[in-house]
Amino acid sequence: MNSSKLLDKAVEQFASLPGIGRKTALKFVLHLLKKNAADVDAFLQSIADLKRNIRECRICHNIADDDLCEICADRKRDTSVVCVVENIKDILSIEATSQYNGLYHVLGGIISPMDGIGPADLHIQSLVERIEQEEIREVIFALSATIEGDTTGYYIFKKLKHKEELIISTIAKGISIGNDLEYTDELTLGRSIVNRVKFSMNE
Amino acid sequence: MNSSKLLDKAVEQFASLPGIGRKTALKFVLHLLKKNAADVDAFLQSIADLKRNIRECRICHNIADDDLCEICADRKRDTSVVCVVENIKDILSIEATSQYNGLYHVLGGIISPMDGIGPADLHIQSLVERIEQEEIREVIFALSATIEGDTTGYYIFKKLKHKEELIISTIAKGISIGNDLEYTDELTLGRSIVNRVKFSMNE
Repeated sequence: MNSSKLLDKAVEQFASLPGIGRKTALKFVLHLLKKNAADVDAFLQSIADLKRNIRECRICHNIADDDLCEICADRKRDTSVVCVVENIKDILSIEATSQYNGLYHVLGGIISPMDGIGPADLHIQSLVERIEQEEIREVIFALSATIEGDTTGYYIFKKLKHKEELIISTIAKGISIGNDLEYTDELTLGRSIVNRVKFSMNE
Repeated sequence: MNSSKLLDKAVEQFASLPGIGRKTALKFVLHLLKKNAADVDAFLQSIADLKRNIRECRICHNIADDDLCEICADRKRDTSVVCVVENIKDILSIEATSQYNGLYHVLGGIISPMDGIGPADLHIQSLVERIEQEEIREVIFALSATIEGDTTGYYIFKKLKHKEELIISTIAKGISIGNDLEYTDELTLGRSIVNRVKFSMNE
């Protein structure tokens, strides 16, 4: 397609990234061509290093540079609360809110019979063991508000409900901040009325 | 920012690509993490190969895998017409139209005193030599419709105008196809009236 096979190959590789077409891929490649060799080497090295050296946290299955991820290794975090998420992207999203100081547990997916993913494919057993062995006060489900998310939460809930002192909670569902009621779907709006909270001027 | 320094470094590198923020960079990195090692190697190798082996066409300064770019090496192209462009991206744009079968000449920029770019910084001398030495019938300026583009065209025109048989043309300026007159700026619309062409049902 272009006048250089080397260029074509690099463009093709960038175009395989999610959401990137050939035009944007070409822009990236031409950008790298303009950079000096050391900068391009640093670019390539960072990806090679990541791919070669990245590990999975022994406790929570988050990605980690060592045996433990930085969150599990952080002495300042509240080790008595575990937030259960589907994948590491969800950890990043929750961390970005600065509203949570506990630990995490990455399931590595969600129960989805349609996609052939059952409980055994997820890190559920290690979560149950973690709760049996460690002093955990509360488990928070931060799963998608979908049938699969609810199913997964319910499955784990059944595995944990015998622990009488354990608090099992799930993140609140309601209207998005900044959203008009008019454009909120009925299910969400209904849930937000049922789960209403005491009005406070601080919110 | 994230829970892994390796991840952070790779995200940072992707975020240095034009138009890519940290969120998209993270999406790319997580995508590569999910791929198998061979695919990631192919990705890295294509960029390393490009950066190491890419050359500049001896004739037209286009990027090339060899001594000549694929366009200059193509025996089917009309070697009597040379289209002068600012950069290789412009070649790709013109090639995508399938409306041109001649050769190119990449200036490598545009005369811009504001940015400290003078004629000596561009491949103008090699264009003049090319026209002196080879049998070229027509030179087409495909430069930006800006003061800098006009200046550059005029500068080259002066260098070539002594060649009496050489046709020197410039790409047409006019309203974009599909555009309402209402939303076309006055300068463009004015130019498109002055440079009107005979009406044809084939257009």
